[in-house]
Amino acid sequence: MKKKEYNLPSCPIPVSDYPYVMLAHGSGGTLMNQLIDKMFRKVFKNEHLDQSHDGAVSELPGNKIAMTTDSYVVDPIFFPGGDIGSLSIQGTVNDLAMCGARPLFLTVGFILEEGLSMDVLWRVVNSMQKAAEESNVQIVSGDTKVVDKGKADGIFINTSGVGIVEHDQNISPASIEDGDCIILSGDIARHGMAIMATREGLTFENVIESDCASLSSLVLQLLDSKVTIHCMRDLTRGGLGTALVEIAKTSKFKMEITENEIPVREDVRAACEVLGIDPLYVANEGRFVCFVPECEAIKVLDLLKSNNLSKDASIIGHVSKSDKAMVVANSQIGTKRIIHMLSSSQLPRIC
Amino acid sequence: MKKKEYNLPSCPIPVSDYPYVMLAHGSGGTLMNQLIDKMFRKVFKNEHLDQSHDGAVSELPGNKIAMTTDSYVVDPIFFPGGDIGSLSIQGTVNDLAMCGARPLFLTVGFILEEGLSMDVLWRVVNSMQKAAEESNVQIVSGDTKVVDKGKADGIFINTSGVGIVEHDQNISPASIEDGDCIILSGDIARHGMAIMATREGLTFENVIESDCASLSSLVLQLLDSKVTIHCMRDLTRGGLGTALVEIAKTSKFKMEITENEIPVREDVRAACEVLGIDPLYVANEGRFVCFVPECEAIKVLDLLKSNNLSKDASIIGHVSKSDKAMVVANSQIGTKRIIHMLSSSQLPRIC
Repeated sequence: MKKKEYNLPSCPIPVSDYPYVMLAHGSGGTLMNQLIDKMFRKVFKNEHLDQSHDGAVSELPGNKIAMTTDSYVVDPIFFPGGDIGSLSIQGTVNDLAMCGARPLFLTVGFILEEGLSMDVLWRVVNSMQKAAEESNVQIVSGDTKVVDKGKADGIFINTSGVGIVEHDQNISPASIEDGDCIILSGDIARHGMAIMATREGLTFENVIESDCASLSSLVLQLLDSKVTIHCMRDLTRGGLGTALVEIAKTSKFKMEITENEIPVREDVRAACEVLGIDPLYVANEGRFVCFVPECEAIKVLDLLKSNNLSKDASIIGHVSKSDKAMVVANSQIGTKRIIHMLSSSQLPRIC
Repeated sequence: MKKKEYNLPSCPIPVSDYPYVMLAHGSGGTLMNQLIDKMFRKVFKNEHLDQSHDGAVSELPGNKIAMTTDSYVVDPIFFPGGDIGSLSIQGTVNDLAMCGARPLFLTVGFILEEGLSMDVLWRVVNSMQKAAEESNVQIVSGDTKVVDKGKADGIFINTSGVGIVEHDQNISPASIEDGDCIILSGDIARHGMAIMATREGLTFENVIESDCASLSSLVLQLLDSKVTIHCMRDLTRGGLGTALVEIAKTSKFKMEITENEIPVREDVRAACEVLGIDPLYVANEGRFVCFVPECEAIKVLDLLKSNNLSKDASIIGHVSKSDKAMVVANSQIGTKRIIHMLSSSQLPRIC
């Protein structure tokens, strides 16, 4: 994906007057209106938002819709490869894409802590708009709340999304079949380790950048090519391991994967080892697995490899019938282990 | 509206094991899955949520949709007449109703503070479902984040909503016309004063109960009766005063109101006086204004008065052309004053 270069204009709310967010910026009066008009409406500008009403009324090009929601509380707000703003758009866009939908409209709910730097908010809002443009979605409605100092952590963002399903496939765990191949779209564990390294002040030879990215154009490319896809899932909190266990439980199948086939960058693997963390459970924000019939697997793999976002895609395993829904990993030395769901809080607030 | 009585079953998450929300309840693993399965899916149960996927795919009965979002950070969580759970449903349902839409689907994003009592969460979740049933909406998708102790304030809830517009009216500030009557649906300032009294531990002769309520059935009744409605707005943060100023600015009309026609309960007025607060700026959660052509005003007023939710409705003023978009109030003693937008933070965190 070609990235546009953005020259960030200076914050339109005079920083000399209001260098920080105040409680009054959330109380419904003059200051809130100024924040909405001069910052949010200015940056997110589109005909839906311009209705200046309690919500946005829009015509949908169809009536099979996908809906999703996610709140973002990532700490730190800025990290190598992204920030809470870009993540809040990409994460929700990706959830819609995983339903096989074309993402169209997002709503945005800000919860700001009194004292947040206005300049930080400005950078986040611009980052959101950049990610929205790259994902071909519009921010159509929003809400701003401010809570007293010490009652939040700078900024929390909720985005909710509506997309349209333009095909007849039912892409969900319920559609998985015996014999399906499991395809992973690329290397894992970068987002979680990027956050972890930044938060803990760890330095490695290379900076680990988050893999966060919008997956919608990639998924729409797959769908347009008319391949059969039974299920997709992005590998956020809990990582690849937890996602597979969840899907195995919902679909009631056994999944067998080969650890050797799962790409992990060398520096990421080293960082995981230093911290005693299993990359299988580390969050990603631009990776997904898809379940496809065996006869379609090579075609899907080739399509994925042709897109820069998933050039390292690989077939990592397959689905089979079993008395027990479970995930089994074959190790490099020929042993098998059962993959369980992440049981503790390995990496809090990674998204 | 007839209220169902709910016997709250005991919390399905063994309180002896997990009396409080822990960081692990938001980390994507076993505990989060337990919370989602045993609490959220159990209470919110419907066929959309049961898809157990990244989002919900649903057929809409039409393709003109309304979308809105709101985050709820009200302090205290429980107050006379409601709680953050019921408010989070009613508030978003009301925003959809104000667009002239039939609310259908909501998404829910929880941000929980580590250490929140599991029992409090259980009560809030049940209150949400009760309000959702009363408003004829389904909670179709959700998200749960947990932040470290001291980084939030118990519980914040975002709800986003999708509704369907089933008529050809364009209900928005842009549709307001010269001569329109302004109708207020009932007495004002109860919600804000209920919160304020609870928060500050103030006791009055009567407990002031919030007016919070779902307005969707009332609005759908108006729409079904085929009356012409130019604009509606619920009177939340900033109250009636700020809502009118916002709409005057957007529609570029002058609005003149008669203070005498605005119902304020005696005890609410007394509480406002004690605290030095103007009821015009106090938040409501079950009140709205509508702008209708003069020839329709009596019909709309009678329809409103026939519903218990708006039995005290009154025509409080009218719209006229003017060089300057402004709101003017005629006082009881015959003087006029210009109503400005609330300029400071009179009552933070009332929703």
